[in-house]
Amino acid sequence: MLEQPLPLAGMRVVEVSSFVAAPLGGMTLAQLGAEVIRVDPIGGAPDHRRWPLAPSGTSLYWAGLNKGKKSVSVDFRSTEGRALVTRLVTDSGPDGGIVLTNAVGRRWLEYDALVEHRPDLIHVQIEGHYDGTPAVDYTVNAAIGFPMVTGPEGHADPVNHVLPAWDIACGLYSALGILGADRQRRVTGRGQRMSVALYDVALAAAGNLGFLAEAQINRVVRRRYGNYLYGGFARDFTTRDGGRVMVVALTKRHWADLLVATDLVDVVDALEKSLGVDFSTEDDRFEYREVLAGLLSRWFSRTDLVDVKTALTGTSLLWSTYNTFAELVTEDSPSRAMVAENPMMGVVDQPGVGRHLAPGLPVAIEGATREPVRAPVLGEHTDSVLGGLGLSTAELADLHSRGVIRGNAQ
Amino acid sequence: MLEQPLPLAGMRVVEVSSFVAAPLGGMTLAQLGAEVIRVDPIGGAPDHRRWPLAPSGTSLYWAGLNKGKKSVSVDFRSTEGRALVTRLVTDSGPDGGIVLTNAVGRRWLEYDALVEHRPDLIHVQIEGHYDGTPAVDYTVNAAIGFPMVTGPEGHADPVNHVLPAWDIACGLYSALGILGADRQRRVTGRGQRMSVALYDVALAAAGNLGFLAEAQINRVVRRRYGNYLYGGFARDFTTRDGGRVMVVALTKRHWADLLVATDLVDVVDALEKSLGVDFSTEDDRFEYREVLAGLLSRWFSRTDLVDVKTALTGTSLLWSTYNTFAELVTEDSPSRAMVAENPMMGVVDQPGVGRHLAPGLPVAIEGATREPVRAPVLGEHTDSVLGGLGLSTAELADLHSRGVIRGNAQ
Repeated sequence: MLEQPLPLAGMRVVEVSSFVAAPLGGMTLAQLGAEVIRVDPIGGAPDHRRWPLAPSGTSLYWAGLNKGKKSVSVDFRSTEGRALVTRLVTDSGPDGGIVLTNAVGRRWLEYDALVEHRPDLIHVQIEGHYDGTPAVDYTVNAAIGFPMVTGPEGHADPVNHVLPAWDIACGLYSALGILGADRQRRVTGRGQRMSVALYDVALAAAGNLGFLAEAQINRVVRRRYGNYLYGGFARDFTTRDGGRVMVVALTKRHWADLLVATDLVDVVDALEKSLGVDFSTEDDRFEYREVLAGLLSRWFSRTDLVDVKTALTGTSLLWSTYNTFAELVTEDSPSRAMVAENPMMGVVDQPGVGRHLAPGLPVAIEGATREPVRAPVLGEHTDSVLGGLGLSTAELADLHSRGVIRGNAQ
Repeated sequence: MLEQPLPLAGMRVVEVSSFVAAPLGGMTLAQLGAEVIRVDPIGGAPDHRRWPLAPSGTSLYWAGLNKGKKSVSVDFRSTEGRALVTRLVTDSGPDGGIVLTNAVGRRWLEYDALVEHRPDLIHVQIEGHYDGTPAVDYTVNAAIGFPMVTGPEGHADPVNHVLPAWDIACGLYSALGILGADRQRRVTGRGQRMSVALYDVALAAAGNLGFLAEAQINRVVRRRYGNYLYGGFARDFTTRDGGRVMVVALTKRHWADLLVATDLVDVVDALEKSLGVDFSTEDDRFEYREVLAGLLSRWFSRTDLVDVKTALTGTSLLWSTYNTFAELVTEDSPSRAMVAENPMMGVVDQPGVGRHLAPGLPVAIEGATREPVRAPVLGEHTDSVLGGLGLSTAELADLHSRGVIRGNAQ
C-alpha cells in the first residue's frame, strides 16, 4: 500500500526551546508531519547535555525529545542572528509563521516583535506561571498537591513522582493550541497569540480529576493510599517467587473473574453475608480493600508468577507484571519482544549514541508511517534551512566565518 | 474588547467514552470551541458514579472531566438507539463526522461500520494495547517501569504514582490526532482512521525521556533517587517550623543564588577546592548531591518557613512550598488566593455539587474566554440534540416512551 502523507504535511514550525515541554510539543507536531525547525544558540540550549548521557557524552534525553526535527544554530546575541530567526518565522509560506517557545526574556522572539513582520503569526509561549514568573515540573508538582498523596501508606514526607507529567501534558497542550490556531487561521486568516503555563496545566488536572472539588465541597484532605486505587479495587501483589503483579478490578465482571481465578468465591461470599456488604460495588470493595487484599495476597504469596499468569490470562481482569526500563529493552529479557515488535517502535541510528529502539508517534494513523526519525545533530540543517531563505553559499560562508551561524561540522 | 470565537468553533465531535482519557480528549476539544456531544447508555457509562463523590452521590470526577459537553442518553442495546448515534455522527455537517471513543466490542461504533455512512469519517479509537487487548493507567504504569524508580530511596517495593498521567497524555494525543486529521480533511477531503493505545503513550514517554536508551545503550538499571532530580540538583527540605520546600537549581545562576541565600558560598567553595570538583556543573552537583543537601538542610532546619520565603524570593532559584489539594481551595488558606485569582479558574454551579472552583482550558488564547462551563447532567441535551437531527416532538416522545432515549428529567 502506498504510504499516505502525514496530516500536518506542509506546516512549518519554528521552535526555540529547552527541556521537555516545548521540545515534546514540537516533536509531536513533527511526528504528525510538520517541518519543525529547532533553532538553538551556538553550543546548544541548557538541555543539550542533560542526563542521561551516552558514553560519548551525547544526551539521550535531548536525542529522545528532538527526533525528526531540523536543527539550526545561530548566535542569539548578534543582531544578524536574530534577524535570521525572524526571517525563518516570517518568510515561511502560508503554512508557516508558527512559533513554539519556552524562551523567556528574549523580546525579539515574543509575539509583539514578530507579529510586526507577519500579521497572521501563530505564537505559543510556554511559561511557568501565567504571570510569567518561572516554575518547572518539580516545583509545580509540589505546589499542586500530588506529592502529598503519592507513596507508601503512612509515609510522612512528600513523594514526588519521577515522571515529568506536567511537562508532557504542557507540551501536548501547546501542540493542541497550535493546531487549533492553524484551523482558525485557515478559516479567518487571523493568527493567534497563546500561552500555556506549566502551573495551570497541573492545576487543571487537579480540578479535572475532582481533587479540588473533593477538597472544597467535601472538605476532605485526601491522604495516601499507597498502591491502592482510590474508590475502587486495585493493588500490587507479590508472588511466591518474588514476582510483582498489579491487579485492577474496576467492574463487576473483573471482580467476579478475580475471585474465580484466586479460588475465593465462597470465602468472599460468606464474608459479604456476615458483614452485610456487596463487594460487586466499587464502594464496598474500596471500603474493605485491606481485608480483600489480605485474602488475595495469601493466594499470590503461595503461587509462582508463571502460575499467576496462567490463572489470570484469558480472564477479563486488568493486570500486569511490573517491569524495570531495562527489562523492556535488554536482549535477553522476556518483555523485550513486546516492545521491539510494537509497531510504534523502530531502530534509529543516532550519532554519538548508536542504534537503539526509539518510539514514533503514539497515535496510529492508518496508511501513514510511525517510524521514528533520529534527532538532528546540533546545527545539522543550518545551511540547508538558511539556504532555503535564499542565502547564497558565499553569504552562508561569510556568516559562518563571523560566527553568526554554525553547522554541525564545526 | 469583543470576545473572539474559539479556534474550533463549528467543529462537531461525538464522544462515546468512559473514565479519563477519552473524556479528557473530548473536553479539551470542547474547551477549544468544538461542540462535543457525549453519548452515554441509559443510566450512564461505568464512570458515571466514580469517586470522589459529592454528598449527593454526584461524581466530582465525572463532573470534572465532562465540562462544557452536551449529554445525550440512548439505549445502546436497541437498534433504533444505535441508528440514532450513527445519524449523530453522519448527519453532522461538513465540520462533523468526528468520533472519539474508548468503547470496545461495539461493532456499530467502529470505523468500518460508520465509514459506510460517511466516507470522510474521522475516527479515533482509544485502546489499552495496540492489538486491542485491554489495559488501564495503573497496569500500563506497572508494565513500563516508572513505579520502580518512584518513591523514597531504599524503598524496595514499586511505588505507583497517583496521577493518571498516561490517561491524561493519551486523551491529549487523541485530541491532537483529531485536529491533525481535521486539517488533512480540509486539504484533501479524506477522512482518517486512528487509534491511540495507552501502553504506547507510556512507552513513548519512556523512550522520549531517554529511559529506554539509557537501559539499552548504557546498560543501566535506573534506581530510585527519592525526591532528588536525576542528573542535576533538586530536593525537598524541611524548615525549622515544619514547612516543606522543593528547591531546584538547574543552571549556574540558580546554584549561585542558592548558595548566597543559604550563606554557603565560602563553605562550598572550600569543599570544591578540597575535592577537586566544580559544583557549577550539573554533573558534579548530582554526584555530590547528598553532601550538598546535607549542608543545605542545616540552613533550612534552622530557618522558619517565612524566612526561607524571604531569602529565596527575588532570586533566580526555582522553588515552591508543598501544598495539599485542600490548601489550594479552602477559604482560610493562604494558597487559595493564587488559585482563585488564576484567570483559568472560574466558579461553576454543578447540579448535585453546588458552586465550586473549576479550571478552564490551560491554554490562554488572546481575546477568547477561558471560563469553565459546568458539565451536563446525564441526558440533558438528548431532546435538543436529537431534535437537531429533524426528529419531531412527537417522535421524541415516542422514543422516550419506549425507553430508546432518556432525558435528564426521568
